[in-house]
Amino acid sequence: MRELPAALEWSADNCTVGRALAIVGEKWTFVVLREIFMGVRRFDDLRVRTNIPRQVLTDRLSRLVEHGILRREPYRDPGSRVRYEYRPTDKGFDLFPVLQALREWGDRYLADPAGGPLTTVHRDCGAPVNLVLRCADGHEIDKMREVVGRPGPGALRR
Amino acid sequence: MRELPAALEWSADNCTVGRALAIVGEKWTFVVLREIFMGVRRFDDLRVRTNIPRQVLTDRLSRLVEHGILRREPYRDPGSRVRYEYRPTDKGFDLFPVLQALREWGDRYLADPAGGPLTTVHRDCGAPVNLVLRCADGHEIDKMREVVGRPGPGALRR
Repeated sequence: MRELPAALEWSADNCTVGRALAIVGEKWTFVVLREIFMGVRRFDDLRVRTNIPRQVLTDRLSRLVEHGILRREPYRDPGSRVRYEYRPTDKGFDLFPVLQALREWGDRYLADPAGGPLTTVHRDCGAPVNLVLRCADGHEIDKMREVVGRPGPGALRR
Repeated sequence: MRELPAALEWSADNCTVGRALAIVGEKWTFVVLREIFMGVRRFDDLRVRTNIPRQVLTDRLSRLVEHGILRREPYRDPGSRVRYEYRPTDKGFDLFPVLQALREWGDRYLADPAGGPLTTVHRDCGAPVNLVLRCADGHEIDKMREVVGRPGPGALRR
């Protein structure tokens, strides 16, 4: 008998990665968030930048509002009816590290020879921003092989 | 005339977030990677843990192999034919921060009252591991509002 992976002893039913993906794991959702974080917040601008079909974009924005990730803010251009732009809530801003991690990976493996099209910088000092994995004892972790999973406080047996 | 968001001056055609999502942004892909990182590496075990339909799982695994994120490793149970398990490549391990970021967000907003089902710890010291955003000048960044996007080396005008 082989030794079973320890993960098989535990339930994945309350996995928070699975729950996060149920909300933001749909195609286009991160593309929408990418644009929102870049300051593109109006429906027509989002259409131009992303080429997402109108109905799909409407649906994804509604879903993000429904889950408290974006909020609608009214605005009115002269001579037009009131429209809405979409701004991230605190819960939405807290998704930024996911985008940053996707971009760092994309820049490493998928960029044009010139490099990635975007850099994120610290507003105060202008230096480039990166994600760092660090443990509570202060060790920085270079290789993912140095990280192991353990049952958390909400772990359930299968 | 309103001031247009600066992002609209730039092309999103070579966006590395978009490219990353074109590979890993499909439903289930991160669920597969989650299990792989947890040490669940055989097709039948992945089926048990994820309930992904057989054909979809086959397809997602092939896609991850094709893009060099997973590699197939042969194994053979006594009395059975050779089968394959799936292991992350270095390129695959480098996606770990995306999963970690999703989990940290999920644990904050979507966990059961008891907490998340999984903790990641440093193999050497056992302390919990978290992502930190930090700029090259050494400032740690608490609020995403402190981060701004700038055209990167590969930025293209629209």
